[in-house]
Amino acid sequence: MMTLSGKEMYDLASELFPICRSITGNGVRETLRLLQQHIPSMLIHEVPTGQKVFDWEVPNEWNIRDAYIINPRGEKIVDFKKNNLHIVGYSEPVDRKVSLGELNEHLYSLPGQPLAIPYVTSYYTKNWGFCLPEHQRAKLEPGDYHVFIDSSLTEGSLTYGEIILKGHSTEEIFLSTYICHPSLANNELSGPVLTTSLAKWLSEMTERRLTYRIVFIPETIGSIVYLSKNYKEMKKNIIAGFNVTCVGDDKNISYLESRDGNTLADRIAKHVLRLIDSDFLSYSFLERGSDERQYCSPGIDLPVVSIMRTKYGEYEEYHTSYDDLSFISAYGLEGSQLIYQKCLEGLETNKTYKTNVLCEPQLGKRDLYFPINCPRSADELAPLLMMKNLLAYCDGYNDLLTIAEKIDAPIWKLADIIANISKKDPSLLRIIDDRIDKECDL
Amino acid sequence: MMTLSGKEMYDLASELFPICRSITGNGVRETLRLLQQHIPSMLIHEVPTGQKVFDWEVPNEWNIRDAYIINPRGEKIVDFKKNNLHIVGYSEPVDRKVSLGELNEHLYSLPGQPLAIPYVTSYYTKNWGFCLPEHQRAKLEPGDYHVFIDSSLTEGSLTYGEIILKGHSTEEIFLSTYICHPSLANNELSGPVLTTSLAKWLSEMTERRLTYRIVFIPETIGSIVYLSKNYKEMKKNIIAGFNVTCVGDDKNISYLESRDGNTLADRIAKHVLRLIDSDFLSYSFLERGSDERQYCSPGIDLPVVSIMRTKYGEYEEYHTSYDDLSFISAYGLEGSQLIYQKCLEGLETNKTYKTNVLCEPQLGKRDLYFPINCPRSADELAPLLMMKNLLAYCDGYNDLLTIAEKIDAPIWKLADIIANISKKDPSLLRIIDDRIDKECDL
Amino acid sequence: MMTLSGKEMYDLASELFPICRSITGNGVRETLRLLQQHIPSMLIHEVPTGQKVFDWEVPNEWNIRDAYIINPRGEKIVDFKKNNLHIVGYSEPVDRKVSLGELNEHLYSLPGQPLAIPYVTSYYTKNWGFCLPEHQRAKLEPGDYHVFIDSSLTEGSLTYGEIILKGHSTEEIFLSTYICHPSLANNELSGPVLTTSLAKWLSEMTERRLTYRIVFIPETIGSIVYLSKNYKEMKKNIIAGFNVTCVGDDKNISYLESRDGNTLADRIAKHVLRLIDSDFLSYSFLERGSDERQYCSPGIDLPVVSIMRTKYGEYEEYHTSYDDLSFISAYGLEGSQLIYQKCLEGLETNKTYKTNVLCEPQLGKRDLYFPINCPRSADELAPLLMMKNLLAYCDGYNDLLTIAEKIDAPIWKLADIIANISKKDPSLLRIIDDRIDKECDL
Repeated sequence: MMTLSGKEMYDLASELFPICRSITGNGVRETLRLLQQHIPSMLIHEVPTGQKVFDWEVPNEWNIRDAYIINPRGEKIVDFKKNNLHIVGYSEPVDRKVSLGELNEHLYSLPGQPLAIPYVTSYYTKNWGFCLPEHQRAKLEPGDYHVFIDSSLTEGSLTYGEIILKGHSTEEIFLSTYICHPSLANNELSGPVLTTSLAKWLSEMTERRLTYRIVFIPETIGSIVYLSKNYKEMKKNIIAGFNVTCVGDDKNISYLESRDGNTLADRIAKHVLRLIDSDFLSYSFLERGSDERQYCSPGIDLPVVSIMRTKYGEYEEYHTSYDDLSFISAYGLEGSQLIYQKCLEGLETNKTYKTNVLCEPQLGKRDLYFPINCPRSADELAPLLMMKNLLAYCDGYNDLLTIAEKIDAPIWKLADIIANISKKDPSLLRIIDDRIDKECDL
Repeated sequence: MMTLSGKEMYDLASELFPICRSITGNGVRETLRLLQQHIPSMLIHEVPTGQKVFDWEVPNEWNIRDAYIINPRGEKIVDFKKNNLHIVGYSEPVDRKVSLGELNEHLYSLPGQPLAIPYVTSYYTKNWGFCLPEHQRAKLEPGDYHVFIDSSLTEGSLTYGEIILKGHSTEEIFLSTYICHPSLANNELSGPVLTTSLAKWLSEMTERRLTYRIVFIPETIGSIVYLSKNYKEMKKNIIAGFNVTCVGDDKNISYLESRDGNTLADRIAKHVLRLIDSDFLSYSFLERGSDERQYCSPGIDLPVVSIMRTKYGEYEEYHTSYDDLSFISAYGLEGSQLIYQKCLEGLETNKTYKTNVLCEPQLGKRDLYFPINCPRSADELAPLLMMKNLLAYCDGYNDLLTIAEKIDAPIWKLADIIANISKKDPSLLRIIDDRIDKECDL
Repeated sequence: MMTLSGKEMYDLASELFPICRSITGNGVRETLRLLQQHIPSMLIHEVPTGQKVFDWEVPNEWNIRDAYIINPRGEKIVDFKKNNLHIVGYSEPVDRKVSLGELNEHLYSLPGQPLAIPYVTSYYTKNWGFCLPEHQRAKLEPGDYHVFIDSSLTEGSLTYGEIILKGHSTEEIFLSTYICHPSLANNELSGPVLTTSLAKWLSEMTERRLTYRIVFIPETIGSIVYLSKNYKEMKKNIIAGFNVTCVGDDKNISYLESRDGNTLADRIAKHVLRLIDSDFLSYSFLERGSDERQYCSPGIDLPVVSIMRTKYGEYEEYHTSYDDLSFISAYGLEGSQLIYQKCLEGLETNKTYKTNVLCEPQLGKRDLYFPINCPRSADELAPLLMMKNLLAYCDGYNDLLTIAEKIDAPIWKLADIIANISKKDPSLLRIIDDRIDKECDL
């Protein structure tokens, strides 16, 4: 039952970095094949071009082999093979001479970041274009430029990966990450590599209370595709979900709430983050920008939040060539992994208990209390006080997470106390949770 | 579809100012006749003396022709014809000589405001009296005074005006203002002239979603009379109401909550005021003092608030001869009108929408989105973000006002976005609001 | 209808102080007999050793006649007859020589408070021990010590006192205090003496709306015993309860909430305390430590709070020989009594009213209003405003306490206004409270 180490996650990101991903195409397939080496139980699905998915339809498949611009002097000045951000995603094929004036209508650069190549796409409007640093663009001279894009936009399919890890209960935890950006490290590769590590760890667990649904999809259209095929089951079963993105740097810890703002996913995320770093940044659903847009949309209403390091859009390297492997680190990935593990472990232990006796149970006769009542230090009393406070709220209504918040104790400590009580007297507490404890179809 | 201008409202107030109004009598009738010239659809009702109205009954009708005091030297020192505040409202007729001692028991003045004539009434206790400036009273010498009041207190009726403007829906907006004070400008004439302007504007609208019930009544007894005749229908239909008073100065913007504090009237008032002047003054229902005392009373429970400029009782000119035409202005009246219009327009547009698709709608194919995904400035993105946030809450539960508050946007901007979406694709949103959209008995 | 004075309560505490109480035994019986002299209606119950009470059982009865330590020099250095705190509660009999090493395992002292004798018990683990000041213990020399404890631990019973004072309603107020500590003044005797005074006062009332259940019990095991016999009836009838402890000093006023935090007991306690001393200390249920641990336990869920002066555990004299008669005072006891009386009187008057008319009642015709409407000072208007605000919330839903909080007025002032209105017009208000007004089985 091992996660990947921070170093292993970083190395996996490095291996994936050069691949030119988009919302469809072979870059996605190659990415999934590499992840599958760590998580063999992943199934890879293909959904054909043209399939209707709610208000959308699956677009043509895009693949690209080469692209460049040759300037009037015959020099190759922009080369897809050097950096796949140079090409506007979903560019149609082109091979002709254009004037600087016409070329400029197809060029994208960032005046405020003159050395960065921006990341640009045009999925649903036929177009072509190149991205380049502003400082390079500024030097372009009048004349004829040869633009060449060897791409294809044809019927094909959209590809995604899916792992279902059954637990004792049909209640599900949902992890979603995306695999549609070319060479971008924090937004995006940090997400898939952390999710791969978590999937590996979960799949090797000997005992799972909950079921896990983990998907590697292209952003937006991928989550819409996946929901259109699975949303009824997902609405029935998912109790908490996480959109895993931007988890590779080590600057901040950020939380983006669900549309509801108070789902189980929000509650566990805030509980864990408060304990790990009470200065974490909290973002409203109004500041969303990834697949929670679909998962939390009206009528879908899944309990999905994001726990990130520095949020997309909040760092200037975002969606530029500076979001590269130097922006993320093994240390950053490992910290994110710790938070996600605490959340998932917390959800695993989050049952609702009720004492089987009225009034306080007699702890002494179960060897859970001091034999003699004499003055003691606060430190000596603290663990006992936590146990008594826990028991005072085991009323069959509060789940463990609610109690943890009420009595200001980490849920993992409460889970340890529950384990200790159950060892001393298995009959003192019973679990009040019909669904989890009746459905055991593992 | 025109309101009166600020100047026109001010002129109307000036025309009404000299009339001696009270809770009954010819001053009320003359006032209503002048208002009717602007709003011909107003009906004028007469309710006879002695009619039981809940715990009260309609009092005798009071009319007054002349009143004065002649001092021992034979000088007319207090003269109703110079200022109708000189007479205590509902004074019974009197014509005799009294000593200074007896006279003093019938005189009212303000020690703290030596130049002001106070406004005093004695509706339900038979009495007579005169009001005068403290500085004048202080100079009265011993001797015989001739007091003369040519008034009548006889069976008659209580008079009020009422306009019902039908809309597509039976749901009603209620506007109430009072017409029972003599020559007082902010409290009271600002209310009737603004309400007249709003009634004119509403009656000339080509299309009204909501029905409007607008009344011009004497305060307290008038609202009790009106409720006793109409409260069952009012309770069934009124979704928001406003008691229009003290809207003529330009010093403050004030809001007085309903008894419930969170009705639709409270919500739209606070939404509009926050946007127009976030420093508006907010008064608790405990600080009430006008007809919301009746409209919000237990068992009546109408959703009625007041939006005022400087609240009654909060300015020292209140209920004195200094609350004259110099205290109000065209500018102040026009500002108040703007606020009321924003509230009424907001209520007109406040429907509950639901998107007809699951997940985010594809905005691009409806020409509601940029064709290409490239870096853009926050200013460029803001309108799109507002539209996306609006759609994210069009879940069939949140009305437009709730969404406006959630996403911190003016309801009028959201109404514009809804209109634009509906133009591009009329089938994307449907209205969830049984009552409004089924009952169309215009 | 008289309470004890502060002086009388203090004298009663002084009379009870020397008695060696524990959770069972003759000290409890003697204490109850002395209290019974003030409250003859108290019944004394005996519950036999071995009886099962929820998760617990009634322990053997403990009685002690003498106990001491004689040092190697033959000096009696620790003597139960000088201070009954010297003996560990529930010590088994012993009469032998022990080395200083063995003796030390049975000695209890407070290193941080070298002059204080601590209070120690060992109810459920057979043991024996002595408590002494640290400074005395530090001087003990090696050698043989004679330890002597003349106690008995035999089948017997647990003793408690109970008073039921019937009212017009079956709804009950519950007062609980404990009588199981030896010579300790604030924690504990302040509780029983105040409760005795309140019981006397309540029992002499000519008219009681509510029923009162008052118990004098040993802490923890006593409340468990009492609940095991009565909890069904208590759950049905108790609307508010108070655990009376630590009410004898005059340093602070403290409130400890119920587990729910918002019961009627919490509401009246906070209302009264805010008015009497808005700086009162407020403790969370997590800081509980007395019989609310049982009364508020899951499945019992009684609305029980504590109003204290300085809370147990929050003063350094707590559970030491310094919590003696000099720590409490007649003044402190009397202040606590005032607070409890205000709470009980508040609950007696806390009915739910509804006006029998729609709109505001006409106060003038009932002689509840000024005959003439002229400018008046805020002071002159205040009582009238309070009456109007009270009436504005007499809607059949808000009880008097809710209104008191809403309009920021003491419940006792509102009760006076209600009385005055009812005198002027008994038909204006009706009481909406099925249970209280239908069940009159006094």
